[in-house]
Amino acid sequence: MSDRLALIVVANPSPVSLSHAMAQAARHLLDGQGYRIAWHDLYAERFDPVQPTGEQANVSSDDALVEQHCGELARADLVLVFHPNWWGQPPAIMKGWIDRVFRLETAYGYPPGVTPDGVPRGLLVARHAFVFNTSNTPMERERLLFGDPLEALWKRCVFGLCGVDAVTRRMVGPVSGSTTEQRAQWVSDVPKVIADALGAAI
Amino acid sequence: MSDRLALIVVANPSPVSLSHAMAQAARHLLDGQGYRIAWHDLYAERFDPVQPTGEQANVSSDDALVEQHCGELARADLVLVFHPNWWGQPPAIMKGWIDRVFRLETAYGYPPGVTPDGVPRGLLVARHAFVFNTSNTPMERERLLFGDPLEALWKRCVFGLCGVDAVTRRMVGPVSGSTTEQRAQWVSDVPKVIADALGAAI
Repeated sequence: MSDRLALIVVANPSPVSLSHAMAQAARHLLDGQGYRIAWHDLYAERFDPVQPTGEQANVSSDDALVEQHCGELARADLVLVFHPNWWGQPPAIMKGWIDRVFRLETAYGYPPGVTPDGVPRGLLVARHAFVFNTSNTPMERERLLFGDPLEALWKRCVFGLCGVDAVTRRMVGPVSGSTTEQRAQWVSDVPKVIADALGAAI
Repeated sequence: MSDRLALIVVANPSPVSLSHAMAQAARHLLDGQGYRIAWHDLYAERFDPVQPTGEQANVSSDDALVEQHCGELARADLVLVFHPNWWGQPPAIMKGWIDRVFRLETAYGYPPGVTPDGVPRGLLVARHAFVFNTSNTPMERERLLFGDPLEALWKRCVFGLCGVDAVTRRMVGPVSGSTTEQRAQWVSDVPKVIADALGAAI
């Protein structure tokens, strides 16, 4: 049995969402490749997104689920997130997953002598992260009018800061009005995107 | 008594935070100008940020506090938000305030014949919004490395989409290592920023 770990996190209030179907397709692929899977449906597990302290005190938690997430994030070889585009950002429950789990000394730290207004270093060992978004906004409107904020948020602000430079992101949509065939295609594309990005390293 | 309404929303886990001090300075100014103040400290009121449905079903809520926020947002002449920069985004509790309160038919709607993959129209009557952020990231690093995502998130993705084109934003910091005098200056700047932006219309 491999000890390679894939952390899969999905945030969508509907358990039959496209986000869930896409996450399951990733799970199926990676399970077949021998990864141990840490599967987290944030809505189903009632993840509490409210971080009770500021940055400096956020090094441990009374919330056992948060501690579990932190342990898995620290060890994960792959991190995969699935969520809809809500206001150019993740749903609050996944924003809170970032706030609470990508914490000081788990996901990033300050080198000796560097204070929190300085430049932190990433601590994650994951060699690749994947972000799959669903949206009702056509991509051209998302890019031209809104600037597609999720691209910078995940690649630069979160994973980049925490030391994961290889990030592959796909956003599919508009989901509203899409056909069954189109949605099936989006789901079946997920394992292809992952396999293409990882190549022989899968 | 004026019936002009200023909605002030603050999200910071520490009740003695700079965010709170800046929000109180805004409250003092606007109270003195005769505004009715709708004051919401999201942590203190234990706002639940988890939106239980997707976009289409999000037109009413069983949560009385969410309904109160929606009513106030719909009527507000001014909307002012205060929060730290966490990962280029608001803390989850404020992201959930966006998810739940800036809802369909309250903050935006689709014109007849337009489906949710089309272009919505803003419904808010507020003539001006203000965003005050605190950060530990120096502004140059925030802009060059991360692209200062909060600028587009608030101005384009949230307030712009909902019909509020006049948005004034300030981000102060780094808070870590700042002096008492510097923090006092940031607080005293808040009413000046608001007064300058509103001019005679205050």
